[in-house]
Order: sequence, then C-alpha cells, then structure tokens
Amino acid sequence: MLDKQAMEKNIKLTIEYDGTDYAGWQIQDNAITIQQVIQEALEKLTGDQVKLVGSGRTDSGVHALGQVANFFTRSTIPSDRFDHALNSILPSDIRVLSSQQVPLDFHARYSAKEKTYRYQMLVNTHGSAIVNRFYYHVRPPLDIEAMKRACKAFIGTHDFAAMQATGSAVKSTIRTIYEADLKEDKDRLYFLVRGNGFLYNMVRIMVGTLIEVGRGKIKDTDIPDILRSGKRERAGFTAPAKGLFLDRVYY
Amino acid sequence: MLDKQAMEKNIKLTIEYDGTDYAGWQIQDNAITIQQVIQEALEKLTGDQVKLVGSGRTDSGVHALGQVANFFTRSTIPSDRFDHALNSILPSDIRVLSSQQVPLDFHARYSAKEKTYRYQMLVNTHGSAIVNRFYYHVRPPLDIEAMKRACKAFIGTHDFAAMQATGSAVKSTIRTIYEADLKEDKDRLYFLVRGNGFLYNMVRIMVGTLIEVGRGKIKDTDIPDILRSGKRERAGFTAPAKGLFLDRVYY
Repeated sequence: MLDKQAMEKNIKLTIEYDGTDYAGWQIQDNAITIQQVIQEALEKLTGDQVKLVGSGRTDSGVHALGQVANFFTRSTIPSDRFDHALNSILPSDIRVLSSQQVPLDFHARYSAKEKTYRYQMLVNTHGSAIVNRFYYHVRPPLDIEAMKRACKAFIGTHDFAAMQATGSAVKSTIRTIYEADLKEDKDRLYFLVRGNGFLYNMVRIMVGTLIEVGRGKIKDTDIPDILRSGKRERAGFTAPAKGLFLDRVYY
Repeated sequence: MLDKQAMEKNIKLTIEYDGTDYAGWQIQDNAITIQQVIQEALEKLTGDQVKLVGSGRTDSGVHALGQVANFFTRSTIPSDRFDHALNSILPSDIRVLSSQQVPLDFHARYSAKEKTYRYQMLVNTHGSAIVNRFYYHVRPPLDIEAMKRACKAFIGTHDFAAMQATGSAVKSTIRTIYEADLKEDKDRLYFLVRGNGFLYNMVRIMVGTLIEVGRGKIKDTDIPDILRSGKRERAGFTAPAKGLFLDRVYY
C-alpha cells in the first residue's frame, strides 16, 4: 500500500535578494518581508498553505546572494521548475537561483553547518551614485594592513558576546570563525567571513570594529582583549545593513 | 579698471548618476530630472539663478558614470569645492565626482568632441536581484562571436538613420564611430562604443540589433546593408534604458 505521506516533497530553494526595500527576511506584521513575499508566491503557485523555513533571518536592508529556504508541498510542479515558476511572479529584487528536491529531514535552519557573509565598502571621497545601494561609503584614509591583521584575530573559537547587539538573548555566545579576510579591488573593500554561526549584528559589529581599526581608534592588537572582555561598548560601531550580504549557506 | 564680468567663473562638473528614478537629464514640466535637481542645489549654494548646461540629454532611466555639465557663477565658493558642497545636499543617487574652473568659452555641449557609452547585459537564466537596476537581462544562448563581428560593422563614418528612433529630426544622421567592442566577464556582457556623436536611441538600437544577431534573427554580415538602407525597421529592437551608461565625454 502506498503511503500518502510519501508523496510530500521537501524542496530547497537558493535565493538572491536586494534587501533595500524589505523589512528583512522574517514575516512580521505591518511590514513587507522577503519570507512573506516568497511564501505568498508559493501559495499562489501550489494553491496550498506553505510554510517557508529560511536558514536564518536577515535584517532590514540586508541582502543575500545565496539564502537557502525549504518548504513541503504535494504540488505536481516538478521540483526543479519551482525556480522558474517563482521568478515569473516574484518582484525583480527577489530571484530564485535554483530549486531541488531534498530528503524529508532537510531543514534550512537546523541542517545548516556553516555560513559565509560578505560586507562591501567603497573607500573614496565622493561615494558612488551607482553602487550606493550595496556598498557602505567610507572616507579614506584607512590603514588597510592594520584591518587585515585585525581580521585574523576573529578566526577561531571565541566568545563573541562583545560583538552582538545589546539585549540579545541566546544560550551561548561562543562561535567558531573559520575564515575572515579583507580583499581590496581598487576603491572597493570586501570583508568575507565564514563561521559555524553568527550572533545578532555580529558581522556588522565586526566590520564597524575593523573600520575603527583602520582609522586608528582601536588597535588591531586589542581585538583579543575586546573579545575576552565580552563588553559590547569596547567593540566598534554597527556598520549599516546595506553593505551586508548573506553569501552562502553550507549543509 | 577691473572688468566686473571677469569675476564670473565657468565651472565644469563631472557627474555620476543612477537614472532609475529620474525622467532623464533635461528639465521638463511635471517630472523630476537630474539637471533640475543639480541646478536647484547650485542655486541653494550660490544664492543665484544658475543655468546648468549638460553635454547632452540622457533619457529616462539612463545612467551616467561621467556626464559633464558647466555653469557660470560669481560665487566665492572655490571652484574645486563645488563637488563636496553639492554632494552634501544632493540625493545619494547623484554624485559630483569633480569640479574645476574652465575657460569662459568652454561649453559642455558644443565643446564636446567624442563620447563613450557603455551598455550592460546579464546573460543567464535567472536574472539577478542585485544588479537588476543596471543590467538588461538576456536569456542564453547568444552567439557572442557573431555579435563581436557585428560590432565591427558599426565602426567608421556611416549614415546611422536606420539606428535612430523614428520621428527624430536632426540635420544630419551621419556619425563616426571610432570604437565598438563587446567584452565578456562571466555572465556579464558589456558593449562599449565611442563616437563623435550619437543619434536619439542610437546606442540602444545598436544593442538591440546586436542581441538579434546573437539570437540569429539578424546576420552580422547584413549590418552594412541595414545601415545603407536607412530603414529603422530593418535594425533590431530598442534595448531598455536601464543597461545604458553615458561613460565619458571627451573635450
């Protein structure tokens, strides 16, 4: 006898979005979010209620190059056609890059092992009319070499309590950072960080701290001590959302 | 005796803008234009009426990396500080990259000798949420080699009547194209063209024609004949404004 439950499929989506005009990923009242827009598009396509699970929230104004989400459906739409079907009805600032069937126990959030984030800065005097939506404009001079040394201090397993937004409530503030790099390309600066998890605002506070290192307000050699202190006020400012991209989620 | 007129300075501005939210460069009734926004900012700064002359119009939705404009002023603001002063009051999608005093006979439009335009295409199946404002999304396959050959046919002095918007009224439709190139970078395609002048919609029609060559609808070897025919309907479609950038004006 066929198990009716077996007809349910678990579909994984990889999603790119420009977060500028959204109140972040997570569904909320009185504001348009990315999760809501995609979930409504899925309900339109499948005719059923759908619960879309993301790998994690992104804040208001934060972008994604590779957000991952999954949902269960009994729809007859082929698994690998959901991307095209969704793109035909989604707004142009949300694109589904791929869709595929995954095992029923795949969970976009709980199955995630690592994530990479990317933070984009434009270092010049005039800013830019063109890349303004996706780059945080920082005026020179910046001591890039000191910033690169500071990056290295993030790597490893540390208590990152000093680098989370005040008022956050999480069980543990210990996270492991595998890679943290600063790359230069003319007047563009890219901070790339890969870890097993990130606290609330952690990447943006890392970037604010790096910029203060670049400006000589924080010494790169003080980063280990700032981390050990666990004091938010010793780290740098929270860099704005618009430069931040959830780059990739590893499973 | 000092000539009071001699105190008047002619200032040249180099301007970058994201044209998405503007009805083009040229001042018009009932729509916000780039010329108007900058002119009003200049009037605020100088306290005087200002007439800002651009190197040429850009259409609604067209961007610029190096639009040039000039204006006359008796303001005591140093010539090379107008860029910073303007940027402090202009919206973030318009940036003045430089300001400098130029001879009184410099005229942004009449003194222009050559211009380069750049047209950006994204060639993939899903498009992009991130670069959507500045790239025209074209689905593969495209015969890039045929498109490159077609580019070469634009070079030289030709009657470009077949590649201007119908209904345009200009004295001569003869223009000289010095360079026309197609560059590939992963899934990005850039058309770069330098000439002594361009007819209305000429670059966008060149791009539409190239895309039809890439799709096999127009043969690259037919371009000379299309130009000779002078018939707009024989050339390709008008590619959308959002991929087009006025790159540089040469004096």
